[in-house]
Amino acid sequence: MSEAVPEPGEPEKELPKSEEEAVLERIERFRRNRPRLRDDFINSAHGAGGKASAALIDAVFVKAFANEALAPLTDGAVLTLPSGERLAFSTDSSVVNPIRFPGGSIGHLAVHGTVNDVAMMGAVPAWVSAAFVLEDGFPVAELRSIVADMKEAAANAGVQVVTGDTKVVNKGSADGLYICTAGVGVIPADVHLDARSVRPGDRVLVSGTIGDHGVAVMLARGELGIEADIESDTAPLGGLVSALLAGAPGTRWLRDPTRGGVATVCNELARDADLAIILDEVALPVRPAVNGACEILGIDPLYVANEGKLVAVVPPEEAEAAVVALRGHPLGGDAAVIGEVRDDPPGMVVINTGFGGNRVVDMLAGDPLPRIC
Amino acid sequence: MSEAVPEPGEPEKELPKSEEEAVLERIERFRRNRPRLRDDFINSAHGAGGKASAALIDAVFVKAFANEALAPLTDGAVLTLPSGERLAFSTDSSVVNPIRFPGGSIGHLAVHGTVNDVAMMGAVPAWVSAAFVLEDGFPVAELRSIVADMKEAAANAGVQVVTGDTKVVNKGSADGLYICTAGVGVIPADVHLDARSVRPGDRVLVSGTIGDHGVAVMLARGELGIEADIESDTAPLGGLVSALLAGAPGTRWLRDPTRGGVATVCNELARDADLAIILDEVALPVRPAVNGACEILGIDPLYVANEGKLVAVVPPEEAEAAVVALRGHPLGGDAAVIGEVRDDPPGMVVINTGFGGNRVVDMLAGDPLPRIC
Repeated sequence: MSEAVPEPGEPEKELPKSEEEAVLERIERFRRNRPRLRDDFINSAHGAGGKASAALIDAVFVKAFANEALAPLTDGAVLTLPSGERLAFSTDSSVVNPIRFPGGSIGHLAVHGTVNDVAMMGAVPAWVSAAFVLEDGFPVAELRSIVADMKEAAANAGVQVVTGDTKVVNKGSADGLYICTAGVGVIPADVHLDARSVRPGDRVLVSGTIGDHGVAVMLARGELGIEADIESDTAPLGGLVSALLAGAPGTRWLRDPTRGGVATVCNELARDADLAIILDEVALPVRPAVNGACEILGIDPLYVANEGKLVAVVPPEEAEAAVVALRGHPLGGDAAVIGEVRDDPPGMVVINTGFGGNRVVDMLAGDPLPRIC
Repeated sequence: MSEAVPEPGEPEKELPKSEEEAVLERIERFRRNRPRLRDDFINSAHGAGGKASAALIDAVFVKAFANEALAPLTDGAVLTLPSGERLAFSTDSSVVNPIRFPGGSIGHLAVHGTVNDVAMMGAVPAWVSAAFVLEDGFPVAELRSIVADMKEAAANAGVQVVTGDTKVVNKGSADGLYICTAGVGVIPADVHLDARSVRPGDRVLVSGTIGDHGVAVMLARGELGIEADIESDTAPLGGLVSALLAGAPGTRWLRDPTRGGVATVCNELARDADLAIILDEVALPVRPAVNGACEILGIDPLYVANEGKLVAVVPPEEAEAAVVALRGHPLGGDAAVIGEVRDDPPGMVVINTGFGGNRVVDMLAGDPLPRIC
């Protein structure tokens, strides 16, 4: 690229912005309110989906890969094809420890995680890739069993695993196995989900009880000495999204509250929309066993990962229809309105506690539940 | 699925085959000549791209994920959209050790590996996802530098990194970092590459010197005490493919000879096409330094990975034009015709040595060069 050098004495003309400059400017506006990276070394919080993750993504990945598709910084990208057809494209790596837990395995998570990111963009998930990093010495029988879980998850999600890759690393270098999936789905022409379409007065919904997955995996490690009958909610959400969009076609925005939980995705929404999210603590559906375990662990279920739930924003006039649509689906029986969008305070999440008070809900800080997905 | 139970005495009718049965039958035909999995535990050979990899893929992945897109078992899948547009979709994980080597880094490999798989399907690579598995304690500065390599590789390849994921695992559990990429590209309507279109008499070409990447990485470990001026050939092949298809529009089939080398991809072609590949040892372009290092290592350059080369099959009347087209591109200066397709012996690769003899060239066995990509 050749630069125009102004002649001496000539006033500097304002050059038209290049596409890259425009994208960088949008990213800069977006970053304004985001946490800054202050660490010199990676630690577990950078993978926890909260503040440190956001700081790392901004500082390292977003600036390097600046482009229009990446700029919205959701869990996936919209690809527009020459025909005008739009695809959702997303990726996820699964490093959960242990690889089996009540309610599922790393195989289920690997498929559901990617399929759900694609579904949250309003797309119908269709195709999945699977790349395996296997540790030398990993039992083939165990691999077969994990792959059978992936097959089951793909069948339930209505997707095909169409391509893959296999690498083997030294003993001790992969905790058994890691699985990385990517997913592609077609976005119907009439679906346009975007945080920037969210308006004051809109309602915030969650499709069911929160915190089940994170707590189930933590307890499965057996390190805490707590026994409770809690299962991961890992599930494919494509069908639930279709039901919601049919019942509430004005749906503005969807997100699956995985790492960082409902609190973190609501913060991301508040910042992207530059609006306030006011949550109602009493309305949050939480299983008593999850609540109890969270009290012992000293964490708030609002920050705990889910793997089979969605948070939706719908216009007020469609809120009832949305709840009915979600509750009519097997995965949405405990769906509830949990909050409202307001003008003020912009970019923030506030929760009304049951006792007439309220407090600010920030993004997840640190990593209270490492390696849960 | 309900099964039709024949009445006693009634002759069993032949039921029409379900789609899944038809796919399984195709896979079964394909598997006939492939090596069988005999191991109970994963070892490095399962990730080396040769016989053990093929056996693992057949026994564990292919049967589980049986579907039309997966059935051809190339390095990627063709997705046909509702509009009729065709996409190529592929994934690759990079676990190379060390993460930097002469000529590139894990960042270059992660982008080129996926982009090249997409290009080998005749598609124009456009979008890439990147999922990072980072080890606790990995320096952020090092991550920035690897991401800068990915940015450079993406720019050279003409693709955008549009979505990603970041996970952190415990110290010691990822040798620094692993990177998993997936790629999507659009296949032009007039491009139809398929091993089944290969015919006796077709010529086999390679786009340049073989074995550079694998040898460069092995020497970079410094364990062998060999010093040689050998650089990895890691490069994006989309432009080279476009040049080839423009010069030789009848091109039948393409593949990048990564793990397992030219010998292994020729074996895969021979089996998929049910034809013989006759290679000419004297015609193989190999750098003297690579030849020398391979002699000391006791390996044949035919089995060593390349990361910036392609093997092409073209009809005989286009062979000359194909060589001219490849040599006219900066990445194809050493392109050469290296063999011919024949009827007999079907499914096999034979090499004519320089001394009038010939020998059978099998797929790679074992893992002479672990962790080179």
